[in-house]
Amino acid sequence: MKSVIGLYGLGVMGQSLALNIANHGYRITVCNRSRGKTDAFMEGKTGGLPVEAAYSLEDFVASLEKPRRIILMLTAGPVIDQAIEQFLPLLDEGDILIDCGNSFYKDTIRRNRYLKEKGLHFIGTGVSGGEMGALLGPSIMPSGDREAYETVDEIFRAISAKTPSGEACCSYIGPDGSGHYVKMVHNGIEYADIQIICEAYHLMKTAAGMTNSQIQQVFAEWNKGRLHSYLIEITADILTRKDEKTGNDLVDMILDRAGQKGTGKWTSMEGLDIGAVIPTIAESVFARNMSAIKEERVKTSQVFDSHPKAPLGDDFLEQLEEAVYAAKVCCYAQGFRLMKEASEENGWNLNYGEIALLWRAGCIIRADFLEDIKKAYDKEPDCQNLILTEKFREELKTAEASWRQIVVDGIANGCYIPAFASTINYFDGYRSSRLPANLLQAQRDYFGAHTYQRVDADPKEYFHTVWETV
Amino acid sequence: MKSVIGLYGLGVMGQSLALNIANHGYRITVCNRSRGKTDAFMEGKTGGLPVEAAYSLEDFVASLEKPRRIILMLTAGPVIDQAIEQFLPLLDEGDILIDCGNSFYKDTIRRNRYLKEKGLHFIGTGVSGGEMGALLGPSIMPSGDREAYETVDEIFRAISAKTPSGEACCSYIGPDGSGHYVKMVHNGIEYADIQIICEAYHLMKTAAGMTNSQIQQVFAEWNKGRLHSYLIEITADILTRKDEKTGNDLVDMILDRAGQKGTGKWTSMEGLDIGAVIPTIAESVFARNMSAIKEERVKTSQVFDSHPKAPLGDDFLEQLEEAVYAAKVCCYAQGFRLMKEASEENGWNLNYGEIALLWRAGCIIRADFLEDIKKAYDKEPDCQNLILTEKFREELKTAEASWRQIVVDGIANGCYIPAFASTINYFDGYRSSRLPANLLQAQRDYFGAHTYQRVDADPKEYFHTVWETV
Repeated sequence: MKSVIGLYGLGVMGQSLALNIANHGYRITVCNRSRGKTDAFMEGKTGGLPVEAAYSLEDFVASLEKPRRIILMLTAGPVIDQAIEQFLPLLDEGDILIDCGNSFYKDTIRRNRYLKEKGLHFIGTGVSGGEMGALLGPSIMPSGDREAYETVDEIFRAISAKTPSGEACCSYIGPDGSGHYVKMVHNGIEYADIQIICEAYHLMKTAAGMTNSQIQQVFAEWNKGRLHSYLIEITADILTRKDEKTGNDLVDMILDRAGQKGTGKWTSMEGLDIGAVIPTIAESVFARNMSAIKEERVKTSQVFDSHPKAPLGDDFLEQLEEAVYAAKVCCYAQGFRLMKEASEENGWNLNYGEIALLWRAGCIIRADFLEDIKKAYDKEPDCQNLILTEKFREELKTAEASWRQIVVDGIANGCYIPAFASTINYFDGYRSSRLPANLLQAQRDYFGAHTYQRVDADPKEYFHTVWETV
Repeated sequence: MKSVIGLYGLGVMGQSLALNIANHGYRITVCNRSRGKTDAFMEGKTGGLPVEAAYSLEDFVASLEKPRRIILMLTAGPVIDQAIEQFLPLLDEGDILIDCGNSFYKDTIRRNRYLKEKGLHFIGTGVSGGEMGALLGPSIMPSGDREAYETVDEIFRAISAKTPSGEACCSYIGPDGSGHYVKMVHNGIEYADIQIICEAYHLMKTAAGMTNSQIQQVFAEWNKGRLHSYLIEITADILTRKDEKTGNDLVDMILDRAGQKGTGKWTSMEGLDIGAVIPTIAESVFARNMSAIKEERVKTSQVFDSHPKAPLGDDFLEQLEEAVYAAKVCCYAQGFRLMKEASEENGWNLNYGEIALLWRAGCIIRADFLEDIKKAYDKEPDCQNLILTEKFREELKTAEASWRQIVVDGIANGCYIPAFASTINYFDGYRSSRLPANLLQAQRDYFGAHTYQRVDADPKEYFHTVWETV
């Protein structure tokens, strides 16, 4: 009996995804470059499930129904290209390779084109939710040839996360690399969302002098309101944990040096490249880089040892909730706007409400909040910016004073709050009818004859002033 | 009689550079893809100068001494590759192509390798100073084969800018793409330096309600002190100008929509890619992008129409000078640190004091300040960060309170000051012995099993906590 789908690459994510598929009753063949992982997997939780192992690519391919559907769950980069080359001679026209890794969308576009020339289909698919998501229901963002995708749609919807109202967190995103692009932006937003939470913790700890337990209660409380989300929930949970070794709070025993796998960096670079405004996402990447130079920071703290202090208001915690919420709205606004610019640039015709729904469950940034974003885009699908949609607009107006106060408090108290600060600046810049770029244009025209537009002329007309003479 | 050097590409920069070379007595042949520009150039200011025109690549190449030295002054990108291909069949082993355009350093590395295979030399050269600089003395940043460079060193030094004490603003930077990299970072710093000045103008205008004439006086005054620089000087000059058409101040008639040519964006993207911390450079690029969406900003200003106001201190202008200076130090610190990381990554062995000297005159960011940077690096060549060198360290300590107050004032008054805000955050982050990245690492370990380091263990050891069970 042939399998309906195959999965190549039995890392943590691959194993979880394979089990998820088998748990839903789909017969799957798994295969891995090295035999050991396959054996270990088969000896594990696969008992009673329709899982078959193959130990060569030939056997693997031969075990699959036609058109063959093969999920690649591999490390992003050249490994994918190597696997494609190995599979190529074994596949027949119409077979479908599905890259569920964290591939860079431009690689996906390239592979899509390459395989199309060979008569094969390539479905670049963003998968979010980590190990647990992959096992229990991830958020799935597939892209590529729509018809080819339709042959896996049933399986993907079945294994995907479901919203509280039962909708599958999986739907076709668009052509070529759009699925991986949307996944990339998801991760960029995730960086910013996480950084905002960390800065809130930092402010409570450093500026307000609160204990872990007090901070824990705040996050737990927030998780009952509009900030309710997986990230706030795990933050509250983390703050309850004791370190087995020392008995201290575990969070205090963890070194403040952040790692990253590059997708936040990609989002920031793509945002810069396309001319978008995504400062909070970029600042969140820089904040990780800043955290990484721990030894230097410790040394520098001895050189610059002032400890600025400014009093906080009595309603600091209420203000902080408003600030976290407003900052979060701005992070998402930046990410959705970036997708809009990429969609227009690449002709992807993305559906933003649908994307918000995909992120509603299964992925790291899952939250009720995404439901609100979906509703906002459903009502105003052509809106230029999320912060201009009715609900968020009114909430930001209400939050503005508190949000501003929190940024002022943080800076006055010497706290490193680059993401918070960038959100209020984003807001203030975006609602400034007049920015100082007139002076900037005068300077550029002065030193480089780059010309400028005038406030009283057609913007298509460019002017040059002879500022100095030789 | 053969020419000692040739120049291909008679745009504004090419013309200026050719005249500069001829003015220094070096016989030069010029050539352009279209005949018209060459004719116009020859009919212009070349009278009495040792300039010859060629109207075909064959004649152009034949007119040059061997080894031939050919400056390409073309639009960065594929145009350079096309020109290289056209020249290739006409050149002999040992001939030297010199790309003086704003090429991306990775293209320069690639071209360097390609031409080396063909037995030719490629000197990627950053040239800064715009049209006037190219004519009267630019800052020159050459890289590539050192021996090949030595054959043009005399000419390049002769035509380069000179510091007040007479040193040439030209010296060999390092191998392959290093010259264009250094030029790229120069431009990134330039973006940030300009943005800081624009934000200072914005604060004076918007938060302090000063007139252009009052602001002009402040810049003119600053230009007499430690901020003395070309950019401050032209800012003061710009603010004196009247618009011929309306009689208004010219700066008020210029549209606040900034252009850019991409080198600031490159710097930011490279900084992200290498894992550096250059938030102020990135924020300056985002600020240009923000300025570009003028119509949207005007519309949004009507939606969010609060006008936050907070009183400024009596010493606002003194504080602002301190803030501008401190922010400027941080911009340069970020740029120099980026070069350090790239130098280590690529094995370029860059000399930071020397680079500061190159920028001392001729280029857009020329300033006395660069002399101080040179001295700082001469004293402490291995310093991790410019802000830790003695002079700047002490100055930042003095400036800190004012600098912080200005950022607080700007945010409290609703001013868009992303670059200022990012500098104080850069400072506060870099001098924080403890950042909230411990929570971040706990979160990453929670949702993705990414592991963490501990404060009480060898940093080589990574730990994982089982946060939740299925």
